[in-house]
Amino acid sequence: MPDSKIALISGGGALPVEIARYLRRTGRPYIVIRIESLSDEALNEHPGHTLGLGDFMKLFEILSTEQCKAVTMCGYVQRPDFDTMKRDDVGARVLPTIQMAGRGGDDSLLRQLASVITAQGYHIEGAHEANPELLIGKGLQIGPDPSPEAMEDALEALRVAAAIGTLDIGQAVVVAGRITLAVEAQEGTQALLARIGTLNPALTGTLAKRKGVLAKLAKPIQDLRLDMPTIGLQTVEDASGAGLCGIVAKSHALLIVDKPAVFARAAELGLFIYGHDEH
Amino acid sequence: MPDSKIALISGGGALPVEIARYLRRTGRPYIVIRIESLSDEALNEHPGHTLGLGDFMKLFEILSTEQCKAVTMCGYVQRPDFDTMKRDDVGARVLPTIQMAGRGGDDSLLRQLASVITAQGYHIEGAHEANPELLIGKGLQIGPDPSPEAMEDALEALRVAAAIGTLDIGQAVVVAGRITLAVEAQEGTQALLARIGTLNPALTGTLAKRKGVLAKLAKPIQDLRLDMPTIGLQTVEDASGAGLCGIVAKSHALLIVDKPAVFARAAELGLFIYGHDEH
Repeated sequence: MPDSKIALISGGGALPVEIARYLRRTGRPYIVIRIESLSDEALNEHPGHTLGLGDFMKLFEILSTEQCKAVTMCGYVQRPDFDTMKRDDVGARVLPTIQMAGRGGDDSLLRQLASVITAQGYHIEGAHEANPELLIGKGLQIGPDPSPEAMEDALEALRVAAAIGTLDIGQAVVVAGRITLAVEAQEGTQALLARIGTLNPALTGTLAKRKGVLAKLAKPIQDLRLDMPTIGLQTVEDASGAGLCGIVAKSHALLIVDKPAVFARAAELGLFIYGHDEH
Repeated sequence: MPDSKIALISGGGALPVEIARYLRRTGRPYIVIRIESLSDEALNEHPGHTLGLGDFMKLFEILSTEQCKAVTMCGYVQRPDFDTMKRDDVGARVLPTIQMAGRGGDDSLLRQLASVITAQGYHIEGAHEANPELLIGKGLQIGPDPSPEAMEDALEALRVAAAIGTLDIGQAVVVAGRITLAVEAQEGTQALLARIGTLNPALTGTLAKRKGVLAKLAKPIQDLRLDMPTIGLQTVEDASGAGLCGIVAKSHALLIVDKPAVFARAAELGLFIYGHDEH
């Protein structure tokens, strides 16, 4: 339903802004549901409403009044403290099921949240469906051709990332010289990359002699419409600061926020971005 | 060969000191091979010699002159920069094979180092064989009985640790509320525990309401004679600071350095230490 009216439920960060701008530019009808004290201020110039995380009754009133057909959940939301968060009447009814699902992890939480929304007759669209320009392509996207060693590290990083994804641990892994330097669980990619600089220098690269690759891969359990692995300018800066030579993902399975800026900076730093395709 | 003369090749930290003291106390003949600018100063009072990391000729001369039969490698050694490290004639011959093996990871490196030593006719003894008092026992070792939730986290942490061990990633994992909060790769357990405090507080425990368990488990590839998972007073302090309720390992597969102090502190902090036995 690419032309149906869409509501962007917008957490923090630049991703929702990019989707909103794309929708405006391409003329698709849309509204933005800004989450109180979380959404980027740049969203204020788009048509929309501001809600608290627990305001489900208001959310459904708005989706109905605005005649939306599709909903995209995007942007960063830290897991709230369910025991103390404010809620309206509908929130009070659905939040316990979401909280319960959250005990199985973020993916389970998001899936339950999505099912609450689809139960009201709305179609869930992924960020990559709402704005296909965000997706990583196939093969070398930017930067120097990976050396054979870098390609080996990239494939090993993808292999380890797939394995830790299967364990429902996390999305990101850094491998250098075929050794797994760091594995992401709940700390996020920024913290993952920051600690590369604290490791034994015999294992890591430097700005002068880059070594190692960051892989970001969705977990098999993850619904890509709800949560697709994402990189942005910060990821490129951090990966470079960690002395890595590149970033790898599965082709068409990574969102690149602000792709022109990301590609320009990666080229400048001499970092490759690669969309791996098994076929 | 529990009574044969043994040489302790001693890296950093308190583990070699505890083994040396045990050997002195129990009357077994021994010498300490101190590694230059790495071994604890407390080792200076024990019979022995000080060598550089690359002094293999001197090492074998000493082992022969001292009529040692067994060798234990213990204590912390950061992987050196092989390209620049000093070496004697024998070092020059064996170090390239060790460096090459190191490309497959620390376990592979240690195994090659051990094979260089056994090739000279020496028997490798594990730290836990040289000093059996260091081993964790079976069941609750100290602290409060784990709650059912804590036991669930402990078993899940052991399960995840076994899986990441199989992937040759690392030994330690923190699980809280059945969610894997952090996975250790090359950063070590101290950094692993330090970052628990940086995570979303909705996922973690506090000193007032502890939550989550640290598991430490050898990788299947790991030779326990060369490198057994280890905890000490710092681990207990860090685990407590991270708001965890306990530490779990497989029974008889974890070294506890300075066990009396570790147990006293864990009891004081209200942290359990548990040796899991599948049977």
